[in-house]
Amino acid sequence: MALNIVLFEPEIPQNTGNIARTCAAINARLHLVHPLGYSLDEKHLKRAGLDYWHLVTITEYESVAAFMEIHGKDNLYFFTTKAHCDYTDISYSDDTYLVFGKESAGIDEHILVSHPDACVRIPMIEEARSLNLSNSVAIAAYEYMRQKQFPSLQREGKLHRLSWGETK
Amino acid sequence: MALNIVLFEPEIPQNTGNIARTCAAINARLHLVHPLGYSLDEKHLKRAGLDYWHLVTITEYESVAAFMEIHGKDNLYFFTTKAHCDYTDISYSDDTYLVFGKESAGIDEHILVSHPDACVRIPMIEEARSLNLSNSVAIAAYEYMRQKQFPSLQREGKLHRLSWGETK
Repeated sequence: MALNIVLFEPEIPQNTGNIARTCAAINARLHLVHPLGYSLDEKHLKRAGLDYWHLVTITEYESVAAFMEIHGKDNLYFFTTKAHCDYTDISYSDDTYLVFGKESAGIDEHILVSHPDACVRIPMIEEARSLNLSNSVAIAAYEYMRQKQFPSLQREGKLHRLSWGETK
Repeated sequence: MALNIVLFEPEIPQNTGNIARTCAAINARLHLVHPLGYSLDEKHLKRAGLDYWHLVTITEYESVAAFMEIHGKDNLYFFTTKAHCDYTDISYSDDTYLVFGKESAGIDEHILVSHPDACVRIPMIEEARSLNLSNSVAIAAYEYMRQKQFPSLQREGKLHRLSWGETK
């Protein structure tokens, strides 16, 4: 079972850093499709990715065409505000690729119209243009994880200083 | 029906900006509990919040104690990696307050042990310390919205340049 997060031409390093952190937290693989709006060793990206970057398996592609050539027949879902289907209406299969477009423009409409049944949307009010990219990825990735009952993830935490029985 | 997002002493303006953007997108109210790690008119916050800031109803409190004095008897859920209950195990009531601690330290453990049944957790691998704050808020807020079937949110988008029937 594997969840794959795919970013087509991401522009803002802090977003990719936060997405890498989310991928690390849930054992998802990250696929970065060039051109990127930053260098992968840029200090903002490292800072936003904290010390989780080494926990993430990252695959790079030279272009959207190169990614589609390799993964065109996989279970792809294209996240776009332009779709008619809610992301929660999908029953995700085990090996899934959740695909997100660049911050400024989303996914190219030629890709969308070629895969109309694979386009999904995160509901929001009419006046909102979109969510932050890293937030969209987090929402989508955790819906997948919820459907799969959070495989291999830790379900309990511990207090550091107090204990649950204490009232003060 | 109202969803309320509560930030206890948030430190990083970009996170609050992204959270405001999410609140705007789903008609959630935002509650900011001082001290904040930034000024509310700081340019980074405005930039991260884009043009959505004016769509958000924001309430400020001078301290956690002041917030708890007013809302202590409301439906509060405290998001913490230290809890034993998944955030998806809750059946959220209509008027709900999802509470998040500061980026560096989370919610004070005295608050947590005083409300053990209201503490919930987002599952992640054991090695991950936490998610980005704005990502955690987005995941939690959209789980609430999913349970409520996305009230008053737009469920369909439109292509801008092409149409769904086109193949090229």
